[in-house]
Amino acid sequence: MAWTAEAAIMPPVNDETVRVELGSRAYDVVVGVDVLDTLGARLAALGFAGRCGLVTSTRVGALYRARAERALATAGFTPVVVEIPDGEEHKTLATLGAIFDALLRAGIERRTPLVALGGGVVGDVTGFAAATLLRGLPVVQVPTTLLAQVDAAIGGKTAIDHPVGKNLIGAFHQPRLVLADVGTLATLPTRELLAGLAEVVKYGVIGDAALFAALERDPDAVRTGDPERLVSIVAACARQKAAVVAADELEERGERATLNFGHTVGHALEAVTQYGRFLHGEAVAIGMIAAARVSAALGVCDASIGARIERVLGRLGLPVAVPADVAPATLAGAMRADKKSVDGRIRFVAVEQIGRVRLVPLTAQDIVDRL
Amino acid sequence: MAWTAEAAIMPPVNDETVRVELGSRAYDVVVGVDVLDTLGARLAALGFAGRCGLVTSTRVGALYRARAERALATAGFTPVVVEIPDGEEHKTLATLGAIFDALLRAGIERRTPLVALGGGVVGDVTGFAAATLLRGLPVVQVPTTLLAQVDAAIGGKTAIDHPVGKNLIGAFHQPRLVLADVGTLATLPTRELLAGLAEVVKYGVIGDAALFAALERDPDAVRTGDPERLVSIVAACARQKAAVVAADELEERGERATLNFGHTVGHALEAVTQYGRFLHGEAVAIGMIAAARVSAALGVCDASIGARIERVLGRLGLPVAVPADVAPATLAGAMRADKKSVDGRIRFVAVEQIGRVRLVPLTAQDIVDRL
Repeated sequence: MAWTAEAAIMPPVNDETVRVELGSRAYDVVVGVDVLDTLGARLAALGFAGRCGLVTSTRVGALYRARAERALATAGFTPVVVEIPDGEEHKTLATLGAIFDALLRAGIERRTPLVALGGGVVGDVTGFAAATLLRGLPVVQVPTTLLAQVDAAIGGKTAIDHPVGKNLIGAFHQPRLVLADVGTLATLPTRELLAGLAEVVKYGVIGDAALFAALERDPDAVRTGDPERLVSIVAACARQKAAVVAADELEERGERATLNFGHTVGHALEAVTQYGRFLHGEAVAIGMIAAARVSAALGVCDASIGARIERVLGRLGLPVAVPADVAPATLAGAMRADKKSVDGRIRFVAVEQIGRVRLVPLTAQDIVDRL
Repeated sequence: MAWTAEAAIMPPVNDETVRVELGSRAYDVVVGVDVLDTLGARLAALGFAGRCGLVTSTRVGALYRARAERALATAGFTPVVVEIPDGEEHKTLATLGAIFDALLRAGIERRTPLVALGGGVVGDVTGFAAATLLRGLPVVQVPTTLLAQVDAAIGGKTAIDHPVGKNLIGAFHQPRLVLADVGTLATLPTRELLAGLAEVVKYGVIGDAALFAALERDPDAVRTGDPERLVSIVAACARQKAAVVAADELEERGERATLNFGHTVGHALEAVTQYGRFLHGEAVAIGMIAAARVSAALGVCDASIGARIERVLGRLGLPVAVPADVAPATLAGAMRADKKSVDGRIRFVAVEQIGRVRLVPLTAQDIVDRL
């Protein structure tokens, strides 16, 4: 992953910009190498000046806070920095309260933008703080994990967790800009990069056969963090996420639900293993294989689809099977508790072919019977 | 105020319904006597069924919880009841967290409506809980104070306080229905009823000369809680608030700012007296007299306007003068700290004539110099 050292002798990698078309709330997702250094200039280009908030985590802060502050200072911004602890266990009302305290005591105003620099936890909790401070501040997402770059940072879903379940408290609050610097992925632990790649595979399956084919052709270039490939892949995912969000901003119709491919079984697997055994992407990898199997059993696709998905995930080093010690009845129980189920029915995302899925209402039992 | 006993021998008072025109988020404000008993039927008419949340305060709960529960049960609802402590000092993140806990542990789902039964604190904090639980639940406001009926319950502003200031954390979240039962005002302490009347006078000044004239003609009928007059007055205020909200839902233009007539000095007076000396409406009464004086000094209106406002407020038993122990410089300091000031300028609401106001950008010093 130490490709930054060679960057000087390699040709520069062009940025890609994806527009999230949401009328008056439209915004750009900028994907590139070292775009973090343009943070201040881009914030100024959006019409902001003076004070801003910068929320990051201890770990990400140690790596990128100084660079972000420099980029902001160069453009004339004076950031109020808040560091929150790392880890999903801190995605809580208490952390939100600490962000409120720090920013309000610093005297932020209605037009003060917040910058979220970090992974999904930082993005979700900072986005929620921005949604609610002074009834809504502008927010810029600077995701530093692959998972956040291809998914969480785009689309305006913000949340905190509650002991009863994950993401149960939150708001829809679109960012003003998403700045995805694939350079920051160089410091991401390999296991987290791979878990993020599971979501990339998902985008291929649900709507981008060319992306899927590219992953099939050369999984190693992605796995080892080739920057040009990463820019192209993150931008392809961002394009798809942007299209889905534009079609179904508030998750009221089916479009946004297709993003849950692999997530019905994936979420259940995370829940029954107390979120301690699998990273989200790993659980989704297993969930995608399961979803392909259910799809084939329903006659929605043939068995070769599942085999292709399994082969790509396996070559990327991701798990592909529900562990033997997890009983189907346990999984079914967790599916029934999912907040997305309506009257006991789950909108299951079935795959028709690589690049096309459809929603099939199923019960949890329907699903585990076909695993 | 004990008019309920005579109600049986008086002709029934008709309800009035005001529509808040907000497209897909439009809703009714129903004003009437004993409309609380129609709560369940109206919730069912909106398409809800089964579970609902009912948030109230200890004091209001003791008076009206049983009636609300009965109205809900009659229509087939099983309410999950949450009681919060009374008082602005409990409009906090901690109270919000307690509501989250109670409702999430009870297993509420995305279509579970919440009912806010109480004054401004209950309405604001329950509205905010509804805005954020599962990223947005429907909410019905059942305001039981005059101030909440004519103002806070309509328009979707929700919030909690923070040690740094009031209403600094919140969201815009329109209710699905506002049910204003003027019968509940019979149990309101007289001082609170009168303070609510200050906001009624404000509606007259900013946009309803007929309402103002009616108050001038017969302040006593209002002050003593005649139900027919109260329905007519609350509905008149609701009509005006509804029009302002429809024109400027998110307070981005000037329309909604006109509601702040009397509030620049009023808020400052509340702040410098630590929110312990004046009720909000009392401070607004003094603020309206001050605003009329500033308007006359600016040449926006003649001095007779202030005299008319002062006479009505005085006859309603409201305070009309800034206390001698509050120094102008202290007031000016509090105005500068107001979150609505932009670059040191306050959008001051000046009165042109009874029923018409306009915004004038002024500094805090401009204002106190003309008091």
